[in-house]
Amino acid sequence: MTEIDAPPHPFDAAVALAPAADGRLRGRTRPEYANMVGPFGGVTAATLVQAVQQHPDRLGDPISLTVNYAGPVSDGDFDVTARVVRTNRTNQHWILELAQDGVVTTTATMLSGLRRDTWSDTELAMPSVPPPDAVPAQGFPDFIAWARNYELRFVEGPVPDQDAGEHPDSTSTLWVRDAPARPLDFPALASMCDVFYPRVFLRRGRYMAAGTVSLTVYFHADAEEIAACGEDHVLGTARTHRFSRGYFDQSARLWGRDGTLLASSHQLVYFKD
Amino acid sequence: MTEIDAPPHPFDAAVALAPAADGRLRGRTRPEYANMVGPFGGVTAATLVQAVQQHPDRLGDPISLTVNYAGPVSDGDFDVTARVVRTNRTNQHWILELAQDGVVTTTATMLSGLRRDTWSDTELAMPSVPPPDAVPAQGFPDFIAWARNYELRFVEGPVPDQDAGEHPDSTSTLWVRDAPARPLDFPALASMCDVFYPRVFLRRGRYMAAGTVSLTVYFHADAEEIAACGEDHVLGTARTHRFSRGYFDQSARLWGRDGTLLASSHQLVYFKD
Repeated sequence: MTEIDAPPHPFDAAVALAPAADGRLRGRTRPEYANMVGPFGGVTAATLVQAVQQHPDRLGDPISLTVNYAGPVSDGDFDVTARVVRTNRTNQHWILELAQDGVVTTTATMLSGLRRDTWSDTELAMPSVPPPDAVPAQGFPDFIAWARNYELRFVEGPVPDQDAGEHPDSTSTLWVRDAPARPLDFPALASMCDVFYPRVFLRRGRYMAAGTVSLTVYFHADAEEIAACGEDHVLGTARTHRFSRGYFDQSARLWGRDGTLLASSHQLVYFKD
Repeated sequence: MTEIDAPPHPFDAAVALAPAADGRLRGRTRPEYANMVGPFGGVTAATLVQAVQQHPDRLGDPISLTVNYAGPVSDGDFDVTARVVRTNRTNQHWILELAQDGVVTTTATMLSGLRRDTWSDTELAMPSVPPPDAVPAQGFPDFIAWARNYELRFVEGPVPDQDAGEHPDSTSTLWVRDAPARPLDFPALASMCDVFYPRVFLRRGRYMAAGTVSLTVYFHADAEEIAACGEDHVLGTARTHRFSRGYFDQSARLWGRDGTLLASSHQLVYFKD
């Protein structure tokens, strides 16, 4: 029996966009996905993917996405503009902006495209880790609201507690899924690419001011592979290559339980120690 | 003695931009950096970095860059527009477009910023390889014009020749510098992030239609570290994580000879086998 009166999943509410004036789309930040300042960057990325997903001119599925976090998003309404820059035979380039009261807070570019059957191969094996039910669920501190909407099972590199000392490397590996569970789709996958807390916290064993300035997602999986994940856990791992003078990178990979590399993702993070 | 009448280095000629109407910048493709179709993607990325570098409103040095190759650039003139989206206290977000006859061929977003002294660490060690003079210079086939402007010394994964069979992995590692030699700067570093030929050629042991659709560069090095490289070789390595249904990713890293991680770079490539 379908509960047609059931409220939407909090994630669907957070990425919902309604048509507004001048071709813009209107959304609203949700307290469920709040971060220290403004919304969780992953849900902002997901909202921009959603803007393309529901656009009448869209060709194909998300292939790559870059989101630039130019300034903080305040609690409340925001406008998204999604503009097709160029449509080729099998793919399409987009420029997106998220603005509040006419001030741009976020820019993005995205490629969508049709998939074709070609020679295929995954070079990178999924890390060998215990299954999700063998790893305890372990969250972020309670004041990080958005993390309560993910079930996080850290295999290595959990969020440091107050007594944590320095850590020799920056790698975290975890099983993750939406809480409550929700079938995986492109917006949800984009959001999960950002569930890795700033790597500098792990290395230094403490919190400090840090925020993503640019996030890139490569969607390796097609719609069928993503649908096949259903509500199952996804394995994610992330690490930094270099911390240098106020910025560091993070590279992440997300696998389906069966070893399908769903996405690889990279971000540059500002920090102040 | 400075030869003030010496012609500019071909790279400087290729990225040169002159003020044009409506705040645009006018450039011109150069035969020295031609690829199979249009110019080498690296030099297009470098031209966009150059547009910001010479902009009067610029704040700080390049921190991150994403270039989207939406359509082919034809031989001849092109226009670059560089727009500041937002200037924060220590960094600045840009949107750039490259167009020919009003048709956008390339979009980009860039972050520039001021560096501050912070805790710093490089987690990724430079691969242990023989020095450049112990590795023979080995180019691309002659019909790839742009590659003649780089001195390429492959440690592993050279361009496959006609008799090459399939290769078990996608990794190429090489020493690279401009030919003729030229002091490293931000545009040149951006360009070098794209010297790795499509990884599918290596895996399959043959050429096929392939082109970068999106390239991201994270500049880990500051201006001083880049200047310290001078005209010396840079070590680059690149690999793919997944080839799937018409697209694959490539992740690359570039080190200075002394082990400084100068840049990490990621791209998504279209291919047709």
